[in-house]
Amino acid sequence: MNPNDLPSPWVLARRAARMNPSVIREILKVTERPGIISFAGGLPSPATFPVGEFATASARVLQQDGPAALQYAASEGFAPLREKVAAMLPWPVDPGQVLITTGSQQALDLVAKVLVDPGSRVLVETPTYLGALQAFATQEPEIVGVHGDDEGVLPDDLRAKAAGARFLYLLPNFQNPTGRTMSEARRAGLAELATELRLPLVEDNPYGDLWFDQPPPLPLSARRPDHCVYLGSFSKVLAPGLRLGFLVAPAPLYPKLLQAKQAADLHSPGFDQRMAAQVVAGDFLDRHVPRIRALYRSQRDAMVAALQRETGGLGVEWNVPGGGMFLWARLPPGLNALELLPRAVEAGVAFVPGAAFHAGDSEDGQALRTLRLSFVTASAAEIDRGIATLAATIRQAAGA
Amino acid sequence: MNPNDLPSPWVLARRAARMNPSVIREILKVTERPGIISFAGGLPSPATFPVGEFATASARVLQQDGPAALQYAASEGFAPLREKVAAMLPWPVDPGQVLITTGSQQALDLVAKVLVDPGSRVLVETPTYLGALQAFATQEPEIVGVHGDDEGVLPDDLRAKAAGARFLYLLPNFQNPTGRTMSEARRAGLAELATELRLPLVEDNPYGDLWFDQPPPLPLSARRPDHCVYLGSFSKVLAPGLRLGFLVAPAPLYPKLLQAKQAADLHSPGFDQRMAAQVVAGDFLDRHVPRIRALYRSQRDAMVAALQRETGGLGVEWNVPGGGMFLWARLPPGLNALELLPRAVEAGVAFVPGAAFHAGDSEDGQALRTLRLSFVTASAAEIDRGIATLAATIRQAAGA
Repeated sequence: MNPNDLPSPWVLARRAARMNPSVIREILKVTERPGIISFAGGLPSPATFPVGEFATASARVLQQDGPAALQYAASEGFAPLREKVAAMLPWPVDPGQVLITTGSQQALDLVAKVLVDPGSRVLVETPTYLGALQAFATQEPEIVGVHGDDEGVLPDDLRAKAAGARFLYLLPNFQNPTGRTMSEARRAGLAELATELRLPLVEDNPYGDLWFDQPPPLPLSARRPDHCVYLGSFSKVLAPGLRLGFLVAPAPLYPKLLQAKQAADLHSPGFDQRMAAQVVAGDFLDRHVPRIRALYRSQRDAMVAALQRETGGLGVEWNVPGGGMFLWARLPPGLNALELLPRAVEAGVAFVPGAAFHAGDSEDGQALRTLRLSFVTASAAEIDRGIATLAATIRQAAGA
Repeated sequence: MNPNDLPSPWVLARRAARMNPSVIREILKVTERPGIISFAGGLPSPATFPVGEFATASARVLQQDGPAALQYAASEGFAPLREKVAAMLPWPVDPGQVLITTGSQQALDLVAKVLVDPGSRVLVETPTYLGALQAFATQEPEIVGVHGDDEGVLPDDLRAKAAGARFLYLLPNFQNPTGRTMSEARRAGLAELATELRLPLVEDNPYGDLWFDQPPPLPLSARRPDHCVYLGSFSKVLAPGLRLGFLVAPAPLYPKLLQAKQAADLHSPGFDQRMAAQVVAGDFLDRHVPRIRALYRSQRDAMVAALQRETGGLGVEWNVPGGGMFLWARLPPGLNALELLPRAVEAGVAFVPGAAFHAGDSEDGQALRTLRLSFVTASAAEIDRGIATLAATIRQAAGA
């Protein structure tokens, strides 16, 4: 018998059988086509990458410390980088609490492994970061969205849903996808409420340094360090291609997260950790990050101005994020962002429909009208043209 | 009430509650102390790392392609590196089947996510690679060890245990920990048997290129590509510190593994992938790997000679591996490698007790006598001294 005639021997795990190719991802593959202006991706502007500093640092690391940089290394991460992370954070952190991860995406995977059993309740903001939903889904939780307003998650809805939850996942600063920032009052209240409810928090803060007008309020982790796992990233302040993130964990969790890290990839690349440690040594970020802020602020301003100019009379709504990379918009009643996407791509502009960021409740009419627009990848001139194209597509779809 | 008086809010996942700090790892932490000769770690010799080539490649990547190398990238991996991997393998592989992973350790994590449900049966050689046991354990399988002899797993034992198994995990070449290589006859028979049993194989081959006398037989994946996931690594032929591995998967599995990869860390660092692609372009490995083979062969020879010289009359047994990094030894009856370890470390030499590499059945008396000795990290002179010290420790423990 020819073995090729046999049925496939593979039996998928339940979680893998449920994985589906994303419709949105398929549509967005087109956005790599030259000429498409993409507001879809979350790609930092390459103009902000300190290429020269990396060249100097990589040469120095290999010259001074090559064999060690290329050898297996400790799962916790490179000690000087852990020390720098601890020193950068706005509350007292011992470097021994810092675990270097392969991007903050890996921190989400490790948190799920250590805290989520099949069927465990996990609370998220709705909408929330798609990559967190994907990382958590690997451990098959019951994901429950907590509703919010402009200040953040709503305490009453949180209280109603918290029983038995393993944690609440939050992006308090310039959230992906909404651009929203949790207010000081809401943070203070949430810190109290989480303590009362004995609800752990997983606080993800990739965008906090990218503020345009004023720094965001203090992280929740600074208020209740024993109650929080804090996730950070070098992707937005240095470069994402090195895949360097970190987490800060309280004592009862750290050894478990470390063992999960070891099983996941032994350690993050030591060469990259040493390069990054060289680049961020001293006050480099204090000089570099303000340049990123200024660029992204000018691009946010360009997008807001273009939306005002181009969508007059259409009934499109949007927020004005105080930092980060994303603006959240809402189509006029009756329009559906998922249906609009192929027409927009056809016309030469791309975005992500907001429904993609919802955990299971994307069928509600409000969510179907929303879209996420990144203002950091396209230049100001491209933003002008792209928003004009998007407005024309909306106008046509609305029959206006 | 002071929130610090509250009990911990954290509830661990079942898998995390079961994780225990390794007794062996605690003992081996001491081996970083200067003066200890360690046969414990699996650290490639830093003398084999092509530091100069990496320096040239990193400078060129940043100069020619800096922004792209530092940007987010495709989860599949850098196309030229995938093409090189496909071209290097000894059977026809489409680059579209290759997924670049953050070390081959990550490939084990992805395989477990895609193929293992809680309680799923997973077959492994016994003993086997400890990191695979750790990666699989994250998805809570029932791990079952298949017994073997000098030629590899025993077909009758495999047949008896295969029912319902999701896969058999194998290291056919210069296995970690035993140094054993599966014979051509056993491979041919196993390829037939796996097809008959509809048993998928996960074939891990980090050491296959490190042969000393003759190349190992063709991989099982080359015989039954639709039946196998193949795992490879650049850690042993270039350097482990970049954390670059890969897997080759058949069509029904690839999209699932890719989604799991995306959820795990989005992608492996693009800068490192481009550097590695530069270094391995052309015939670099054809010139470089023979130098690694020659060095490791001389170190294996030094260890075998030292064992012969030092352990005369003690009843210590060992194999002579035809490649790789590890030699497997057995203490005289009545001795226990785990009990010997602290005495050996005290005397200045370290190894890993073989019981660490067994899945659940380490209590059997045979396993307790075994130990793994790495011959690649210590120099020939250190090997001489280390084996002399080890022999003296055994002699003392045996009361001889």
